[in-house]
Amino acid sequence: MKIKSPHLIKPNAHVRLSKKSTSDTGGYKSEEAAAAILVKHRKQLADLQDVFYASQTKALLIVLQGMDTAGKDGTISHIFSGINPQGCDVASFKVPTPLESRHDFLWRAHAQVPPRGMINIFNRSHYEDVLSPRVHKIITDKVMRRRLDDINEFESMLADNDVLILKFYLHISRDEQTRRLQSRIDDKQKHWKLSEADLHERKFWPQYIDAYDRILSTTSPKHAPWFVIPADHKWYRNIAISTILVEALQSLKLKFPNPTVDASAIKL
Amino acid sequence: MKIKSPHLIKPNAHVRLSKKSTSDTGGYKSEEAAAAILVKHRKQLADLQDVFYASQTKALLIVLQGMDTAGKDGTISHIFSGINPQGCDVASFKVPTPLESRHDFLWRAHAQVPPRGMINIFNRSHYEDVLSPRVHKIITDKVMRRRLDDINEFESMLADNDVLILKFYLHISRDEQTRRLQSRIDDKQKHWKLSEADLHERKFWPQYIDAYDRILSTTSPKHAPWFVIPADHKWYRNIAISTILVEALQSLKLKFPNPTVDASAIKL
Repeated sequence: MKIKSPHLIKPNAHVRLSKKSTSDTGGYKSEEAAAAILVKHRKQLADLQDVFYASQTKALLIVLQGMDTAGKDGTISHIFSGINPQGCDVASFKVPTPLESRHDFLWRAHAQVPPRGMINIFNRSHYEDVLSPRVHKIITDKVMRRRLDDINEFESMLADNDVLILKFYLHISRDEQTRRLQSRIDDKQKHWKLSEADLHERKFWPQYIDAYDRILSTTSPKHAPWFVIPADHKWYRNIAISTILVEALQSLKLKFPNPTVDASAIKL
Repeated sequence: MKIKSPHLIKPNAHVRLSKKSTSDTGGYKSEEAAAAILVKHRKQLADLQDVFYASQTKALLIVLQGMDTAGKDGTISHIFSGINPQGCDVASFKVPTPLESRHDFLWRAHAQVPPRGMINIFNRSHYEDVLSPRVHKIITDKVMRRRLDDINEFESMLADNDVLILKFYLHISRDEQTRRLQSRIDDKQKHWKLSEADLHERKFWPQYIDAYDRILSTTSPKHAPWFVIPADHKWYRNIAISTILVEALQSLKLKFPNPTVDASAIKL
């Protein structure tokens, strides 16, 4: 799987999110200009998934990470509506349950890895168990490094076993987060989305960015690359990601499976 | 949840599938006349699911049963494409695995019951573990009756715990199955869908119909009704089912949840 994208993080690149644009629109001037592209991509994804599901030769794991309000839910609903739900699952990783906490940090992620033929989307992921504990100093820097090594080994094992892995960091500015939270405050219909916990986490913005810089710099091998997607403009975020997905699936050149019976011999 | 539908099976109705039309189109004259309705229903379902997912007050379990080629997969892709995959899962029940066989017959179904806020679609279901063993005389009539009682108790417990259950039997004629299999034989692209097992099962058509008559007659209580959907015409099958789903979800009159924080007190 070879993907050309201006948003690809090369293996061992020294990533500084502060130097990366959150508002880039890849040359597109307006949402209107991009709208037709998303419609086309959605149709292409639906067709590509059809073969992907039938052929059962590869699995696709999509990881979505980003600050609160970065658009993880929106990405899923905008890009993957149109896809056959039979071939696509979404796993949301929240604060670990008591049972999950009693396991190694990769246990719950491993359980949700797609089987061949399926596309699974991780809404947050195993990276959350490195991020949040490090930001709040629940784990030391040494443990963080060890967990990132563990993740690299884990993803490498998955890749060896036919799992394609594409990881997206949805990159918004702090100002954009402020705007999005404010719009939730201004819109009574959206008040239920507000939580004390999210508002609290926001205070740790610089620490999160530091931790992401580390993650993106050390866990983007060729077989499980990160993409840093400028996400201040939702419409550009959507087509930036859908472009990568279409290209990735097309590059597999998958075919419908061979028949198991000799159709010419069947008499109904 | 009160649903009016000509396809509803009333509790303890004496169902004879042979007396029910497989080709009815509910007064619609053509596919073209119905196409706009499906588009409208898909949009409505997407909006209704949005609130359903957010409110987390009810779960929705959709059971799809029918002969091979009856259109279970097609129903899922036509009606549920457009829905946010984050709020919708599909569970396919195949021949039980060795582990599943070591459990009671409801174990694997129970594990896939949706939590509140989710819509889960059973592509085949716990009914398969009554049907197929009875048709092939692996279980006695007495065991079949006991299993149907077990299912009634199980579904009643689920309904008591906020799970809405809607069950659809996709009703095709044997001639229509012949046509659909023939079209798979004629189309090289579809040969991979043919299996010896399916062709073998087809010989037991009358026994399956008998077993379904029993199932439909005894397991259609108000809280978990069956609908027998005329399914020879795929386009009518789709709108017959989407009509019921839209009506069911609308009747819940769900609202977005109440906020957990006082938005007016937040300073960003």
